[in-house]
Amino acid sequence: MALVPDNTLITDTPEQGRELAIMLARKTVGAMQPDTSVRQLLRPGYATNPDSLTAAAHVVAVEFATVAAANNYWRN
Amino acid sequence: MALVPDNTLITDTPEQGRELAIMLARKTVGAMQPDTSVRQLLRPGYATNPDSLTAAAHVVAVEFATVAAANNYWRN
Amino acid sequence: MALVPDNTLITDTPEQGRELAIMLARKTVGAMQPDTSVRQLLRPGYATNPDSLTAAAHVVAVEFATVAAANNYWRN
Amino acid sequence: MALVPDNTLITDTPEQGRELAIMLARKTVGAMQPDTSVRQLLRPGYATNPDSLTAAAHVVAVEFATVAAANNYWRN
Amino acid sequence: MALVPDNTLITDTPEQGRELAIMLARKTVGAMQPDTSVRQLLRPGYATNPDSLTAAAHVVAVEFATVAAANNYWRN
Amino acid sequence: MALVPDNTLITDTPEQGRELAIMLARKTVGAMQPDTSVRQLLRPGYATNPDSLTAAAHVVAVEFATVAAANNYWRN
Repeated sequence: MALVPDNTLITDTPEQGRELAIMLARKTVGAMQPDTSVRQLLRPGYATNPDSLTAAAHVVAVEFATVAAANNYWRN
Repeated sequence: MALVPDNTLITDTPEQGRELAIMLARKTVGAMQPDTSVRQLLRPGYATNPDSLTAAAHVVAVEFATVAAANNYWRN
Repeated sequence: MALVPDNTLITDTPEQGRELAIMLARKTVGAMQPDTSVRQLLRPGYATNPDSLTAAAHVVAVEFATVAAANNYWRN
Repeated sequence: MALVPDNTLITDTPEQGRELAIMLARKTVGAMQPDTSVRQLLRPGYATNPDSLTAAAHVVAVEFATVAAANNYWRN
Repeated sequence: MALVPDNTLITDTPEQGRELAIMLARKTVGAMQPDTSVRQLLRPGYATNPDSLTAAAHVVAVEFATVAAANNYWRN
Repeated sequence: MALVPDNTLITDTPEQGRELAIMLARKTVGAMQPDTSVRQLLRPGYATNPDSLTAAAHVVAVEFATVAAANNYWRN
């Protein structure tokens, strides 16, 4: 399983960097719980719990910090 | 859905950077729970729980670290 | 509402930087829960729960990391 | 027990860097709970709890930030 | 109340930097819960809860990252 | 009590850096709960709780980020 889509942290735009950050977080969870049916079973409880959503958003924020640094914050 | 408003991390001021950090965190939650009515349903419990508010503030702090670095901390 | 007092991350001293970090964290919570009476209602439970205090101190630590970097750690 | 496979943070690709980040996190847990049978006993409850998975993904994100910086984000 | 002892992040040694990180975390808690008698009341429950101790150690780790960067990691 | 073994963040290898990160985390807990018998009493519950182990691994990851930066990621 690919943990890093296209095997690069470089993206054209912040928006794409954000999408990558979300993907990175999801791929990690997929590596730890490879059973798709289990992940789908867990989703409703998770997606309706605000603290679970906040915790997931936290992970995305950390991943994005790395992606943004890799892309020099798309400054140019 | 746009995850990064205006598709840039660059803002004119720290205040705007702070607003962007809050937006980034919210857009992530929106990507994970796209149903607006569910998010609104969750809001009262979340907004009256101090630990939930602290956790959300934590995410904003992490996002802001990235936005601030992108803007060289608005030093000039 | 101002999220960043004086709209700058630059402070004269580490002590002032620390105060700013605390303010930044509080302003975020204020943006998410704008009702002052609710925030005051939540305070006693929060301020007497050691884990809540630790979580809040964590947010301040993250904010301070950004403020300190913005000020080149007040090295000079 | 080796905490860092091959005793280096340098990898050829982001994908391998991601695998290393996962390994680093696992090796830490192994250092704190060296009994393999206990770890295996804990796995089902952990792997079916979305908040546990998110917390683990958070650790991987932090480890990856370090690995990615060590590799200059595989920019070249 | 002083939030930063001696109003500087610069220390002579990593050991002193570590002590400063612990102090910074404690001073934040003191700012949020200024009543010493309450803090002392909370201490036994906190100091015998491993998750509380881990959470506090996490805050110290974040503070230390800032202090260490401020001191260029005491490399010279 | 020494919070930083040998009072330096510099190590020869990533493996040793990882060991140092674990030690730093443990020394912090030791500073907050100096009673060895209490720490030993807490250990079984902690070491058989996957979320406790993940939280501890998180702290180690944060400490390691600092140690790795101090050593320029052992690149040379």
